[in-house]
Amino acid sequence: MKHPKISESTIRRLSRYYRYLEQIEEKEVRVISSSQLAAKCLVNSNQLRKDLNFFGEFGTRGLGYHVKDLLTDIRRVLGLDREWRMAVIGIGDLGFSLLAYNDFLKQNYKIVAAFDVDPLRVIGRVSEKLGKPVEVLHNNRIQEVARERKIEIGLITTPPSEAQNAADILVEAKVKGILNFTPTQITVPEGYVLRNIFFTTVLDNLAYLLSNSLNK
Amino acid sequence: MKHPKISESTIRRLSRYYRYLEQIEEKEVRVISSSQLAAKCLVNSNQLRKDLNFFGEFGTRGLGYHVKDLLTDIRRVLGLDREWRMAVIGIGDLGFSLLAYNDFLKQNYKIVAAFDVDPLRVIGRVSEKLGKPVEVLHNNRIQEVARERKIEIGLITTPPSEAQNAADILVEAKVKGILNFTPTQITVPEGYVLRNIFFTTVLDNLAYLLSNSLNK
Repeated sequence: MKHPKISESTIRRLSRYYRYLEQIEEKEVRVISSSQLAAKCLVNSNQLRKDLNFFGEFGTRGLGYHVKDLLTDIRRVLGLDREWRMAVIGIGDLGFSLLAYNDFLKQNYKIVAAFDVDPLRVIGRVSEKLGKPVEVLHNNRIQEVARERKIEIGLITTPPSEAQNAADILVEAKVKGILNFTPTQITVPEGYVLRNIFFTTVLDNLAYLLSNSLNK
Repeated sequence: MKHPKISESTIRRLSRYYRYLEQIEEKEVRVISSSQLAAKCLVNSNQLRKDLNFFGEFGTRGLGYHVKDLLTDIRRVLGLDREWRMAVIGIGDLGFSLLAYNDFLKQNYKIVAAFDVDPLRVIGRVSEKLGKPVEVLHNNRIQEVARERKIEIGLITTPPSEAQNAADILVEAKVKGILNFTPTQITVPEGYVLRNIFFTTVLDNLAYLLSNSLNK
């Protein structure tokens, strides 16, 4: 990698720019000014220029950034210029909504397997709702299937009490990236990358900001 | 508020401590050392001590923090010592999984209303799955119901193309806090608090870290 030392907050901002640029590219917007892009992504425009200068995108004075070029550059920096193969563990409502989540499909994230402790229970419902037969496999096949299908990211959407167990199975199957959607704090060994989406942590943040703005 | 200047990253860490402490309090753990708590929350233990000292929790040398006291303190700082009343807008699979999401129930976040553009279509399915009759109201009742039920936070789980529209309706209804689960960048006027849970942004972060660790 050319840019190994980009901070997490920079990565988050780059990702936002990228996702917004994708949306406007679809609408055939070809050029955007830094101030427009910054406003849409809720970022300070000096910050945005700093972020983009950092990897050599300077824009054109009075004109702005070429959407397509910027997309190509950010894609390369973030490692999105290739496909990431994912599995979902735990096919409850959240797991199902990830299977159905169209947004992934146009990205380079592809769900290639779904697992559950009780596949027979969920398989009919899932197939019916997605309007096509869907394969849901038993958790005890994760190791074999992860190898065969080259799965690199596991999405954990089990009940909270099963989250650590699901992570352990993924680790055993050498799935290096784990995204935990349950409220349980889990751990993974060194060499694995864990990220969490804690709904309540985001709500706590919102509640704090609301408390403060309400008391102003 | 006594602590108006806590940074967002501190808030996020406090929230993590809080959620973990809640889990162990249920198991009747009464005391925890700073290093244990830090390890469980994936935080550096100096950072943790700094965070907790900041609002007057010093722990007891050689013993650690009293779980119950720490919970009370963080609860007050984060504004969790009261109930937050929420509405879900858009009852697809994700909206439904939030309705069913037990984790909210033991917290101070309470979903008190559910809205959809086509309530008749979703109401039967939702009631059946939750095992009790559930009320889903038409979006055009948000303003009236938000006032009646004192709703302060709106969770947007509509299709992406409807997200800004849902936000506008919430703003019109004076719902001050908005949590957007769709991949669409939306905007709200000053005085409103918007947070996003962008699944793909988190995946982008994971992909970046995996790219780097795989190339090492």
